[in-house]
Amino acid sequence: MDMDTPTDLPLFTKLYTLAQVLGILSVVLVGVWVGLYRGGFGWSAFPDLQFNWHPFLMVLGLVLLYANGALIYRGFRSERKRKLKVVHAVVMVSALVCAVVGLVAVFKFHDSKGFANMHSLHSWIGLATVILFACQWLAGFLTFLFPGLRSSLRAAYLPLHQYFGLFIFAGAITSTLLGLSEKAIFVQSVGSESVLVNVTGLCVAVFAGLVTYLLSQPKFRRQATEDEVLLTDTVLE
Amino acid sequence: MDMDTPTDLPLFTKLYTLAQVLGILSVVLVGVWVGLYRGGFGWSAFPDLQFNWHPFLMVLGLVLLYANGALIYRGFRSERKRKLKVVHAVVMVSALVCAVVGLVAVFKFHDSKGFANMHSLHSWIGLATVILFACQWLAGFLTFLFPGLRSSLRAAYLPLHQYFGLFIFAGAITSTLLGLSEKAIFVQSVGSESVLVNVTGLCVAVFAGLVTYLLSQPKFRRQATEDEVLLTDTVLE
Repeated sequence: MDMDTPTDLPLFTKLYTLAQVLGILSVVLVGVWVGLYRGGFGWSAFPDLQFNWHPFLMVLGLVLLYANGALIYRGFRSERKRKLKVVHAVVMVSALVCAVVGLVAVFKFHDSKGFANMHSLHSWIGLATVILFACQWLAGFLTFLFPGLRSSLRAAYLPLHQYFGLFIFAGAITSTLLGLSEKAIFVQSVGSESVLVNVTGLCVAVFAGLVTYLLSQPKFRRQATEDEVLLTDTVLE
Repeated sequence: MDMDTPTDLPLFTKLYTLAQVLGILSVVLVGVWVGLYRGGFGWSAFPDLQFNWHPFLMVLGLVLLYANGALIYRGFRSERKRKLKVVHAVVMVSALVCAVVGLVAVFKFHDSKGFANMHSLHSWIGLATVILFACQWLAGFLTFLFPGLRSSLRAAYLPLHQYFGLFIFAGAITSTLLGLSEKAIFVQSVGSESVLVNVTGLCVAVFAGLVTYLLSQPKFRRQATEDEVLLTDTVLE
């Protein structure tokens, strides 16, 4: 299906570049926000500064790294499939590590402040997203990499893996925006801080729209190289 | 493209039914929430009760009606295309009217309370979504219905109309979740109210996931009827 859609590489390159700029800008804006308005970063001794790792690591991991992990096949389309799969798994596990450390930061912050955990819509959607992501990573690893199931099973699981990949990304974006909004209200941000938080949210939202477009359009799909077509077992994306 | 994918009608019917249940449940839950915990509905004389129309009308219009407007071609696939286009336009304009009255409710609430408008991420994404929706409705009306452009232009605009349709839906869902979360924090909801708001948010999120899946899968696409294929001008979805 869709194998015959011609690749629109010039458009891909433009949108991919724009997405990267917005993704990096989102992480930088979160860093600027917690750096300038929320006191910067710290760990155990300073609960408020420990909290600040939470938004930073979540946007770095679940927004920027996750999106790049998903885009690896289209962004580096001339590399060999086998190599791309390994890079995909490594980028995704780095994203997962960021997310887990980001969760530790917020739970420890809550505990040291005596705040209740898992109270908000942000926490519900966010935690569900990280748990789904961990399951998806493990299922992907066992199916596509080690030891690797036989190719008919891999082919059957692939669309599900791609669908849940986008679903988890949507969860990550939703909880990012909920988290930004929630924190802005909790700290009663006004004026320039409030504008900065909203601009960050818009960057994340537009980034998400672009990434979803790049991932979902058949015209941006990576085509199997000629030798991959011959070795049918490696064709599966 | 994708014209040859066979339709999976049994799966469509199951997911479509589940989506309808969740969509109606979302509207009911918002009604139960503002009814039981926020004092119910009112207009000018009671600003807090006037506010309550805002979440109710937004979820009714931009979530339930909007999704049903978008799904009309797939949900009522055996009806004639011409009729479906008119119903699509009518459902969408009803959704837009709900959204506009919902906006009036919240602006009047802010004004009578002396609160600033357009402060939060929710308000930015929400207003942008309603403006885009109004533009999209007008462009769709002028292109596809009255007076109707020639079919090559309609064919060229259709994918853009569908893409922005999903984009606006994503904006509506995002601002719904942001709004629920924001209001829950503002009124310092605790215990059962807070759980009710979060469950409502999850209903909206799962509904959105299902609707997006139903709209984006080629296997659920409406097939042109035989006489529509003969009258090529009416084939365009």
